Amino acid sequence: MRTIGIADTTFARYDMGGAAIDELKRSGTGLKIVRYTVPGVKDLPVACKKLFDEKACDIVIALGMPGGKQIDKTCAHEASTGLIQCQLASGKHIIEVFVHEDEANDEKTLAWLADRRAREHALNAYNLLFRPDVLVKNAGKGMRQGYEDVGALRE
Amino acid sequence: MRTIGIADTTFARYDMGGAAIDELKRSGTGLKIVRYTVPGVKDLPVACKKLFDEKACDIVIALGMPGGKQIDKTCAHEASTGLIQCQLASGKHIIEVFVHEDEANDEKTLAWLADRRAREHALNAYNLLFRPDVLVKNAGKGMRQGYEDVGALRE
Amino acid sequence: MRTIGIADTTFARYDMGGAAIDELKRSGTGLKIVRYTVPGVKDLPVACKKLFDEKACDIVIALGMPGGKQIDKTCAHEASTGLIQCQLASGKHIIEVFVHEDEANDEKTLAWLADRRAREHALNAYNLLFRPDVLVKNAGKGMRQGYEDVGALRE
Amino acid sequence: MRTIGIADTTFARYDMGGAAIDELKRSGTGLKIVRYTVPGVKDLPVACKKLFDEKACDIVIALGMPGGKQIDKTCAHEASTGLIQCQLASGKHIIEVFVHEDEANDEKTLAWLADRRAREHALNAYNLLFRPDVLVKNAGKGMRQGYEDVGALRE
Amino acid sequence: MRTIGIADTTFARYDMGGAAIDELKRSGTGLKIVRYTVPGVKDLPVACKKLFDEKACDIVIALGMPGGKQIDKTCAHEASTGLIQCQLASGKHIIEVFVHEDEANDEKTLAWLADRRAREHALNAYNLLFRPDVLVKNAGKGMRQGYEDVGALRE
Repeated sequence: MRTIGIADTTFARYDMGGAAIDELKRSGTGLKIVRYTVPGVKDLPVACKKLFDEKACDIVIALGMPGGKQIDKTCAHEASTGLIQCQLASGKHIIEVFVHEDEANDEKTLAWLADRRAREHALNAYNLLFRPDVLVKNAGKGMRQGYEDVGALRE
Repeated sequence: MRTIGIADTTFARYDMGGAAIDELKRSGTGLKIVRYTVPGVKDLPVACKKLFDEKACDIVIALGMPGGKQIDKTCAHEASTGLIQCQLASGKHIIEVFVHEDEANDEKTLAWLADRRAREHALNAYNLLFRPDVLVKNAGKGMRQGYEDVGALRE
Repeated sequence: MRTIGIADTTFARYDMGGAAIDELKRSGTGLKIVRYTVPGVKDLPVACKKLFDEKACDIVIALGMPGGKQIDKTCAHEASTGLIQCQLASGKHIIEVFVHEDEANDEKTLAWLADRRAREHALNAYNLLFRPDVLVKNAGKGMRQGYEDVGALRE
Repeated sequence: MRTIGIADTTFARYDMGGAAIDELKRSGTGLKIVRYTVPGVKDLPVACKKLFDEKACDIVIALGMPGGKQIDKTCAHEASTGLIQCQLASGKHIIEVFVHEDEANDEKTLAWLADRRAREHALNAYNLLFRPDVLVKNAGKGMRQGYEDVGALRE
Repeated sequence: MRTIGIADTTFARYDMGGAAIDELKRSGTGLKIVRYTVPGVKDLPVACKKLFDEKACDIVIALGMPGGKQIDKTCAHEASTGLIQCQLASGKHIIEVFVHEDEANDEKTLAWLADRRAREHALNAYNLLFRPDVLVKNAGKGMRQGYEDVGALRE
């Protein structure tokens, strides 16, 4: 039995954590899910740390939706840096799923993007844990999460 | 009995630490508050470290009011990065409550914002410690601290 | 027998990991290669950590292809910072091989660049491990990987 | 007996370390001062580390005068980041006293600023060590070091 | 007998490591020099780590020549950040000697600058190790490495 942590925020404007959990449940059995919600993306690094240390998670999916202003970009950068430090300290993956508010022009598209990216990255987390060979097969294939894959370069 | 640390600065132009303490006292019993004041936001990371290590705090609220110039933005970024590192080293939350001097056009509004954000984040700290389920219920709901919540995306 | 790790991504649009492996196989015997593929460049630091800790790699080549937008530049910066931290924690080299999507004007040139840079850096990794004197001989010689060497300054 | 470290640079154009030492000597007895001078601000983090580890300092004042160009701003940012990391690793305060060369229009004013900021931050260090209650009393009061205090917001 | 490490790159367009070694040999006896060459500046932090851990160096001089483009500035920033982290982890100095390709208008001047800065910083390393009092005497004196000293402020 492996344990997957879901760390998400009350700042986000879409239930990305819920979408990831739903996708994981469709992906297979033999996994336990632990959810932990914090105020904003800068609280995610220590949330992941707690999920690793206190809840014995084998991998964590960290989901957030930074705003579109410069200060929000800075917050997202600080959060990402912390997520990488947390991974190095624990030796385990955190799949970061951030959707920036300026990635879509209307709320409906943004919600669609948040849902799809959360689900596709949930599959990445699942594959890293149970089927790492799937990722090796797709190395260099221009995969994207959310919008369409761009594919390999045309040589 | 849980202990909440309050780390604030003499640089700030509003007693944000005092507001947070007042709000915590209204929130419930069974908690001890320890306050530590430092010159500026860049002194906050080690202040939090001391509150965790020397005062056995279970969570810390770090409050500051960076100025509006570019150098102040850089200082705030350095402080935030340090606060995240401190959290990862201690495995405990630091709720960062920063109000940037250019977030309001006049001093009265800025004081109001500083007070309200300090209080709303004090509640976040309280909930993380005593009622984490409240945060899970609000995941993806577009919560904000200070100005109005923006709410979930309209799909 | 020394072990070289190959960490690459499904985000990249060229099989840079495959090119590096091919080049290493041409370079000499007495080495074992372990490949690990992750979604994107921000997943590379912990992938390298795992290659050092779980696969006993002596050196790792980390390959990725960041996009051309500002957010991609930020991701690449975060990844690079994490790769350096991982090296300091393990005391072993990670040869970072990043090709930015805006380094060439068409897909064919970009694929050529990705292939050549991966191969030339594979040689750097090989030399660091087996023939460090080759690097000392080329100190200050203006070597480049991918496009042509610029050479030493004309005095 | 408490020990205060003074870390300063040969790059600075004013003897800020000397000013801090002079102010500390006026502030009270019962303290020992250890001075360590390095080339530039990027050498200050490890200088502070050495003052903590090899000279048993209880607090360090780190003084520097970054230039006015973009590269100097970057150096100052790197130094500040390192000073915060050093504080977190040691659990002790480093009071950073940086005067940027573009903070004044003429050399005389810049020298005055460097002297005054060094002295006022020396007092901060003294108070953190011996009279932390003085800082708590001034929380949220808009204190500045060098130029005039801006004071609390007018509500 | 003290050991000084020289970490340099094949990316640089001038043999800065050679210049530093030559200067050290003129400075005095009683020191051993160990040289380690890596591809680029981002490989320098772990090179220094190895020089401290595997070669027992007491101090390291890290020399590099970042290019003039924005991506090169970012690489230099990442390298510098890593060099500071390495120093904090080892408690020993790394004297960073970077010459940016846009610091001079022609190749001859750039070579002159690289040579002189390498030599002057080699002296700084020598003094930190053997004559720290020389640095204290020059505190606040506006010393520069490469171009002329700017001197103390005129009050």
